[in-house]
Amino acid sequence: MDLKAYLKNRSAMVDQALDRWLPTEDFLPHSLHQAMRYSVFAGGKRLRPILMIAACEAVGGSAQQVMHAACALEMIHTYSLVHDDLPAMDDDDFRRGQQTNHKVYGEATAILAGDALLTEAFRLLADAEANKSAPPKTVLRVIELVARFAGSHGMVGGQVVDMESEGKEIDFPTLEYIHTHKTGGLILASVQVGALLGGGDEEQFAALTRFGGAAGLAFQIADDILDVVGDQAELGKDVGSDQARGKATYPALLGLAEARQRADELCDLAVESLNPLGSAAETLQVLARYIVDRNS
Amino acid sequence: MDLKAYLKNRSAMVDQALDRWLPTEDFLPHSLHQAMRYSVFAGGKRLRPILMIAACEAVGGSAQQVMHAACALEMIHTYSLVHDDLPAMDDDDFRRGQQTNHKVYGEATAILAGDALLTEAFRLLADAEANKSAPPKTVLRVIELVARFAGSHGMVGGQVVDMESEGKEIDFPTLEYIHTHKTGGLILASVQVGALLGGGDEEQFAALTRFGGAAGLAFQIADDILDVVGDQAELGKDVGSDQARGKATYPALLGLAEARQRADELCDLAVESLNPLGSAAETLQVLARYIVDRNS
Repeated sequence: MDLKAYLKNRSAMVDQALDRWLPTEDFLPHSLHQAMRYSVFAGGKRLRPILMIAACEAVGGSAQQVMHAACALEMIHTYSLVHDDLPAMDDDDFRRGQQTNHKVYGEATAILAGDALLTEAFRLLADAEANKSAPPKTVLRVIELVARFAGSHGMVGGQVVDMESEGKEIDFPTLEYIHTHKTGGLILASVQVGALLGGGDEEQFAALTRFGGAAGLAFQIADDILDVVGDQAELGKDVGSDQARGKATYPALLGLAEARQRADELCDLAVESLNPLGSAAETLQVLARYIVDRNS
Repeated sequence: MDLKAYLKNRSAMVDQALDRWLPTEDFLPHSLHQAMRYSVFAGGKRLRPILMIAACEAVGGSAQQVMHAACALEMIHTYSLVHDDLPAMDDDDFRRGQQTNHKVYGEATAILAGDALLTEAFRLLADAEANKSAPPKTVLRVIELVARFAGSHGMVGGQVVDMESEGKEIDFPTLEYIHTHKTGGLILASVQVGALLGGGDEEQFAALTRFGGAAGLAFQIADDILDVVGDQAELGKDVGSDQARGKATYPALLGLAEARQRADELCDLAVESLNPLGSAAETLQVLARYIVDRNS
């Protein structure tokens, strides 16, 4: 398969859907809707939406069946970045080469834009029109699952532990807690939602759960490695920022070679997990390799 | 009916349910769960949950059918207060006589505790076990409705316009936009959810929608009035803080007497709207009067 063409096509579909679902600046309050759109359209790779679409396709569903949920996950991902960048948190002025939300719109609007993106994500997940092909019971399972991975036992919990660990020596279990919760969970949620809304059975759901768990952790290790060896221009952020900030990372704790090996092993595990899905999961296989080998 | 006993009984039920649903401090991250509980148990009147329970009872349902949704609305209300109090927003050190969340746990944890409360609210609204008496389609309608009233077209939108209006002369439509969106919407949502999960029909839903719209606005006008004439000790916050901050209020725009009259008229309208529900809505009638005549 042609991965580049697939990524381009699916991310264009996601961008179009996001543009359709997000309130335009014509609606009051203009500044809020502008700030929401600013960060959603600030150059994200749409990795979570694309994984959801690919998971849905792997169980025989179509991209259209999950497009609203894919947009919802991207909104949750975006809100988490907007809040993480705030002065009280990571205090970042730039992300992906562009000014962060609070630098452009001010802190108060950035906090509220994040809140509104998170809220809109749940509205979209529950949207009756968008969900007309899925049984309501399945849609409720999707909402509960996403909330679980995004909340205090998931992404927000991971962010708190990450923050509290800055500048401290932490052990391996704590590092793995941060990675599986802060980023891994939402990636796992993406493929699980794809399986559910695509009409996958419990065996397919279980296979994609194993895939998502391994791929989610591999993604974050690859991120840690890129922060050490990546190209500043391609990343759109400072290389070495984790180290400068005293953040615990896989390369810092295991060394670069072992971190790379761990990422590769997880990638192999992710690909193996797809066996029950047969050739329908080819795209997900290729995506797993891309997650680990990407350079931005 | 004995309003005092009703308020005491129902708020105790809500507190017990909140204690059951909120993750305890034993779970990681301890600080986050502590911060979430701190603000939820900081002396709220549980007005939104009680209105939801009363609306559910008015259509023939029981408190147990909406208890999880009542807790969810209280979590959303609490998250909005935690974020509103932040230095970048209203910069308040005290609320209801207690230190605000960021004064106790720091700004970063306060932002994340708010995020986690909002997320947990949606998890709870979708909770399969808690919703077993309601059709999944109705539960999805509830989630969409709550998200709409809480998001950029609702509460968050109202907060943005409120913030942007500080220290400016604003016209009456803008003031009404702020009040109906920032506080009115979540109160309206509370009674609508009560009607839906209690199994009310469309006529009852429409009556409760009229009730909730009028009562929600009356509540905020009463709040504005209390900020001028209230007793500092009973309110647990500084009297006159709206004026000091240059906030637009009903008394400031209409004068105290006309503001009071407007609140009374809305209260009458709310009570009249309950006619189709007959004597089952007696509690809501009494609650509407209480909303306007309360002294804290």
